[in-house]
Amino acid sequence: MDRSIIESIPHIGEIHAQHGEFKGALPQATRTFSERMLTMNRIAPSIEEAIRRVGLKDGMTISFHHHFRNGDYIVNLVMDVIARMGIKNLTVAASSLNDVHSPLIGHIENGVVSHIETSGMRGELADRISHGLMDFPVVFRSHGGRAAAIESGELQIDVAFLGAPSCDPYGNANGYSREQDNAASCGSLGYAKLDAMYAKHTIILTDHIVRFPNAPFGIPESNVEYVVKVDAIGDAQGIMSGATRFTKNPKELLIAKTAADVIEASGYFYDGFSMQMGSGGASLATARFLREKMEKNNLKCRFALGGITGQIVEMHEAGLIERILDVQSFDLVAAESLKNNRFHQQIDASYYASIVNEGAAVNQLDFVVLSALEVDTDFNVNVLTGSDGVIRGAIGGHPDTADGASLAVVVCPLTRGRIPSIVKKVNTRVTPGATIDVVVTDQGIAVNPRRPEIRERLIKAGLPVFDIERLEARAERIVGTPAPIQYHERIVGVVMYRDNTIIDVIRQVKDVDV
Amino acid sequence: MDRSIIESIPHIGEIHAQHGEFKGALPQATRTFSERMLTMNRIAPSIEEAIRRVGLKDGMTISFHHHFRNGDYIVNLVMDVIARMGIKNLTVAASSLNDVHSPLIGHIENGVVSHIETSGMRGELADRISHGLMDFPVVFRSHGGRAAAIESGELQIDVAFLGAPSCDPYGNANGYSREQDNAASCGSLGYAKLDAMYAKHTIILTDHIVRFPNAPFGIPESNVEYVVKVDAIGDAQGIMSGATRFTKNPKELLIAKTAADVIEASGYFYDGFSMQMGSGGASLATARFLREKMEKNNLKCRFALGGITGQIVEMHEAGLIERILDVQSFDLVAAESLKNNRFHQQIDASYYASIVNEGAAVNQLDFVVLSALEVDTDFNVNVLTGSDGVIRGAIGGHPDTADGASLAVVVCPLTRGRIPSIVKKVNTRVTPGATIDVVVTDQGIAVNPRRPEIRERLIKAGLPVFDIERLEARAERIVGTPAPIQYHERIVGVVMYRDNTIIDVIRQVKDVDV
Repeated sequence: MDRSIIESIPHIGEIHAQHGEFKGALPQATRTFSERMLTMNRIAPSIEEAIRRVGLKDGMTISFHHHFRNGDYIVNLVMDVIARMGIKNLTVAASSLNDVHSPLIGHIENGVVSHIETSGMRGELADRISHGLMDFPVVFRSHGGRAAAIESGELQIDVAFLGAPSCDPYGNANGYSREQDNAASCGSLGYAKLDAMYAKHTIILTDHIVRFPNAPFGIPESNVEYVVKVDAIGDAQGIMSGATRFTKNPKELLIAKTAADVIEASGYFYDGFSMQMGSGGASLATARFLREKMEKNNLKCRFALGGITGQIVEMHEAGLIERILDVQSFDLVAAESLKNNRFHQQIDASYYASIVNEGAAVNQLDFVVLSALEVDTDFNVNVLTGSDGVIRGAIGGHPDTADGASLAVVVCPLTRGRIPSIVKKVNTRVTPGATIDVVVTDQGIAVNPRRPEIRERLIKAGLPVFDIERLEARAERIVGTPAPIQYHERIVGVVMYRDNTIIDVIRQVKDVDV
Repeated sequence: MDRSIIESIPHIGEIHAQHGEFKGALPQATRTFSERMLTMNRIAPSIEEAIRRVGLKDGMTISFHHHFRNGDYIVNLVMDVIARMGIKNLTVAASSLNDVHSPLIGHIENGVVSHIETSGMRGELADRISHGLMDFPVVFRSHGGRAAAIESGELQIDVAFLGAPSCDPYGNANGYSREQDNAASCGSLGYAKLDAMYAKHTIILTDHIVRFPNAPFGIPESNVEYVVKVDAIGDAQGIMSGATRFTKNPKELLIAKTAADVIEASGYFYDGFSMQMGSGGASLATARFLREKMEKNNLKCRFALGGITGQIVEMHEAGLIERILDVQSFDLVAAESLKNNRFHQQIDASYYASIVNEGAAVNQLDFVVLSALEVDTDFNVNVLTGSDGVIRGAIGGHPDTADGASLAVVVCPLTRGRIPSIVKKVNTRVTPGATIDVVVTDQGIAVNPRRPEIRERLIKAGLPVFDIERLEARAERIVGTPAPIQYHERIVGVVMYRDNTIIDVIRQVKDVDV
């Protein structure tokens, strides 16, 4: 039987390729694995060379993650290289931006960046954009909305530049380093995971190259094209603190305690419940008061979701929380736990909150506790623009969790200094009132009229429930009515709801003489 | 500012959808998470209903995994339902098939199944196919080749039917159950993971529905469409034994000891090496002898890959192996370790061995120890057909690891009963000789002439090295030359190399009067 004469096979047809025509005839690797790791790998010698190899061109879309928060070096590092290379007209699609990213202003002025998508921004960049820096409005998306936009193809990423505290020579990347304990950690790589999965090209930037396999991995090598070693990915202090700041502010503590009382009386506090605490002093502190109630009533939480803190980890390690689903680690304790606790699971942004994914974890929430800059009498929430109309926040997972959870509790002080938090109309509508159930302030609670049964339960529990109009009037009585913000007609930002329809726009603020 | 009048935005254009037109206007979930788990989930009431919902039609391709090995109930269960529903002409693309799957014969005869793709088959089904049961030749692929075919679109799966020992109501599935310790375990879901990722529709069949989130998960809910509860997914005894059988066969032990000596002398046994042991008594036993050498020389293994056994787990827990990459757990000890050991990582078939993925783990192997039914004097290996020409094996990861590893060691006895293992020409070429470096038998070692440096090192170490022709001649002297197998012209199987080019065909065997 001469196999070389087989030219066709019944029911399969003509044979186009016999073995040996492609690979397999290649010489076999003979160097050891350890030698190959040093020589045959995905390490590119520089950011510039990696950019050249993936073929970044004018007009493309690049992405970054915000797991390094205000300690991030990656965005500025990469943008400087891109600017030097003369590439123009890029869309920067970051999962979020922070104060540290003000150098983007220069790149916008020089035409390197022509469009930005992000969950939020702060500081000088946000201020300049609010004052009309960009021709093209910034698109603000929630974490779930960004994931959905990536999955649906609405947001197509050409090159993802993803910082990682550890990576092996083939691209297995983690938000911590097991081998170099002094590494700058960020914990979960939840937002970065999805970018790596969908971007046409993914480049990992790391300050610690570790041996293959950097397993378990946050991002698998199969999603990575190049790895670049850089001196530093970020400032450990800015990336995260040792543990989340425990608020000592008596007003925040009062709000947190009341929020815990609301949850206890709401009907969603039972053995096996699920929860998420949003960022912010009062919302994070709510977990402390819930813990006492859980211990007293011998209740366990089935899973805690979201941005994870040391407080949640402690409750997990004490057996009060069975599972942690972590899209973003808020402090070093959470990052360490992700490394060490078997039931502390890293999840990606889609698994967390994408509307494309009906099984998303936000849809399994009993309750979420969320902060707010402003809440209006229709229960709409603003977490994006300040009382002066200037951008100074981020959407985050606010609308995603509010929509998914059975009980969305918003915590905020009635007033902040001379600024009311409960208003007639929010400056910017980020989370629609139809998805908010309860507002907890230091001066009383309001329940959305859509949830009369909750209102009844809270009153029965002796909690101070008011119509939201009364809270608004009280705030107005205390601080007066602020002068309306003066805007130009020009639109500087577009706010997308989690289904990526437009829920509001942000207009250019007028500078008013004071 | 009346937001409803915003009809277009500079640089973004006309607004096609404002918030409220799609979702978000929907009524919010108010039931508790625990109640929703029971009512709003992905559980379909029966296999038949799940099949109806995904729209399985004549001529489509369905897939199964073989992690339950010869204890699998899923294939027969699902095929019976499909046959009752009157669906015909399907392609069954299983990651592998076993003795237990002989009911497929009836489905082939009745026209329910018209084509099979698999890594291998055994027993009555294999016998009947070898004798011409099917019109269309079976396509045999390696584990890495199947992954590559799925990734490249050559193999498109319409519906994946994936058994899982535990699954939550949204589809997070695992190869073990944390909550019901008596569950039938299979450990890693490595082959199933890729099917779930790429199939148009994925249905999980489970005997244990556990609470959300079944995390960490082998298959994430985002890859799952329906979950069906069945009485039993398999026979625990057939799925896996408590621990891999430790061979006591003196011939196998001699071969294993020699293989360990070969590795020690080869130049690939150093601190930080990487390894895989294929299935089979002698290859698995090699780890035992390597362990002694590691302890004596104070060497550590950076990672062990592949089908994982209790032996590998013990070495991991003793600190001798730093990382385990597990595409398939060979015994209960391995399955338990996957559940409990943080550095025992579940990987998918692409990450393991796909040629599409240049960073695949097989490419990081220093050495692999592999079994063989036959080896010929060109070092080609047959692991698929017996000495009678009948199919009785599986390709598995044989060609993938042989190609990827720097040193591929094949272990087999010189003769089995009256059958020679070292022959002039293998019946079926599965792994090309160019990728095999050393053959270890109970009566001597042969080194591929392509690796003169290895030959030299083994001789220097005092090992009994011969030309492979001399081993072949010795086998022939002992058992004689078997009568050539009589074949019909008709092709019953096509063997794909890992790059999915055809490396050999299997012809219909003639029944010869004996």
